[in-house]
Amino acid sequence: MHALIFSNTLAMTADAPRPTPLPGEAVIRILMAGICNTDIEITKGYMGFTGILGHEFVGIVEIVNDADTGLTGKRVVGDINCGCTRPSCTYCTQGLGRHCPERTTLGIDRRDGCFAEYITLPVANLIEVPETIPNEFATLTEPLAAAFEILEQVRIVSADEVLIVGDGKLGLLISHALSTTGASVSHVGKHPDKLAISAQLGNQTMLLPDMAAKKYDFVIEATGNASGFGFSLAHTKPRGTLILKSTLAAHEPIDLTPVVVDEITVVGSRCGLFRPALDYLQTGVDLSPIIDSIYPFESALQAFDRAKTRGALKVLLDFA
Amino acid sequence: MHALIFSNTLAMTADAPRPTPLPGEAVIRILMAGICNTDIEITKGYMGFTGILGHEFVGIVEIVNDADTGLTGKRVVGDINCGCTRPSCTYCTQGLGRHCPERTTLGIDRRDGCFAEYITLPVANLIEVPETIPNEFATLTEPLAAAFEILEQVRIVSADEVLIVGDGKLGLLISHALSTTGASVSHVGKHPDKLAISAQLGNQTMLLPDMAAKKYDFVIEATGNASGFGFSLAHTKPRGTLILKSTLAAHEPIDLTPVVVDEITVVGSRCGLFRPALDYLQTGVDLSPIIDSIYPFESALQAFDRAKTRGALKVLLDFA
Repeated sequence: MHALIFSNTLAMTADAPRPTPLPGEAVIRILMAGICNTDIEITKGYMGFTGILGHEFVGIVEIVNDADTGLTGKRVVGDINCGCTRPSCTYCTQGLGRHCPERTTLGIDRRDGCFAEYITLPVANLIEVPETIPNEFATLTEPLAAAFEILEQVRIVSADEVLIVGDGKLGLLISHALSTTGASVSHVGKHPDKLAISAQLGNQTMLLPDMAAKKYDFVIEATGNASGFGFSLAHTKPRGTLILKSTLAAHEPIDLTPVVVDEITVVGSRCGLFRPALDYLQTGVDLSPIIDSIYPFESALQAFDRAKTRGALKVLLDFA
Repeated sequence: MHALIFSNTLAMTADAPRPTPLPGEAVIRILMAGICNTDIEITKGYMGFTGILGHEFVGIVEIVNDADTGLTGKRVVGDINCGCTRPSCTYCTQGLGRHCPERTTLGIDRRDGCFAEYITLPVANLIEVPETIPNEFATLTEPLAAAFEILEQVRIVSADEVLIVGDGKLGLLISHALSTTGASVSHVGKHPDKLAISAQLGNQTMLLPDMAAKKYDFVIEATGNASGFGFSLAHTKPRGTLILKSTLAAHEPIDLTPVVVDEITVVGSRCGLFRPALDYLQTGVDLSPIIDSIYPFESALQAFDRAKTRGALKVLLDFA
């Protein structure tokens, strides 16, 4: 089958073996896939992953190697983390397979990803996509779930003042997730056109140079760069909460003294449950402003170049 | 009056003016005071403070500049943070004067401290010390309150596995506070003699070189040095909580990626309420193993030198 493989360099191949499902797994034919910044980071060495890239997808279940689950032929999205599922695993038994220490992760860690005609995933990871949700938006379920993960981790109520820092893809998806809380949401970024997407959701937006010294109950750091942490910390109230989404702050000199003195809570936040994201998509919300472009899968390398362009929003691959 | 003043250098003076209470304040005659690492840090430039050092004390109320509160002549300890107390302050009105942005702090920030014969503090900051608690232990109320602050911030239950990192003064006081939770408490440090104090409380202790790769639900970083954060993070379970007590991790290169990937919650923790600490002292607990030595106040400079000695536990100043 055709696949986009990373091993030192990124290359399209026509000769990748079609995957065979283990017991409990399904084979899914990919309809559409999305390029994430994590994919770009992997091509720079992140996670030391080699293999087929990609973890954002919507597809059709072709084969189920399990008791019939009624999923065959259905359009699905799927949780990218594959836990050990053992009864002895305290994470898998609590519905936290995404933290199982033995997990593999689609296109990120010891499991081939979805920039290919076919993938396998455990049947338990799959969720049928309601008919009303188009492929373009269904492909965004995974990053949207990461945005909704914030609401699984902390309780944000209407009295809270929230600041989103960063107006990239993730920051904009977070602006969608937070618009469901009733809280007063502010959004700071560098790009008027992107902030306009957040403003349409009712959020108050401001360009970075216009940012006042105000502090917030919750600050969500989604800049994807190292300077985001210090900026976010400076805008978090004493006893407030900073949600950290970027993994790129690594190995930078960071002053944690304000965390202690102001008793700030820093909550790391990664992948989320798919159900809240699908429920939100089913309300008929329009995510097309977050989509930069759609490339045919055979042009995946050009799509990757586009995704790497500074300021590009979500780039999708169409397998039709 | 006699006082230990810091201004570029640390010096005893006999000529400090005796403080005058503002409305709502009391004058307290100091009976005993404790030297904290923060005092030592201030002499290195921390907080940019100049004036009379010291914030751990027990004393007798001499004058009350307020409606009679019945406190005159009583033995008291006192919260070191003095909030603005305005009805418009969201911190002061919630009992969080210790986070009021306009607060002064005894011997730390714009308010002369307790290494002096007399101090002033707002009457509202004072709590009478039960007769059964000796001066030596009452002086430890403030750092013990900082240890109990952890239990105000996070809910630790008997099923939790907790690791305390660091066996200095604060680590040992934390081992006392956590011994009240019923949780399984482990304590790692570098000093067998200090760990023995924690072991007597029923905590499992281990020397740093013997530390296994195990991860814990809660890890409490109380090392007072920059390497403590990374070590503590490495021993925190995915979705676990790291309580950060040290302010000395400043400006170090820190990798926050595990915080995001493992969705760890980092909780900064500083000063606490005095009541839980006094309640604990009233149970008759013996804190004498945490006391290194007691110097007469006139030997405060020697006491300071002793407190600066590597590995010294709590050094007290006796004003009798």
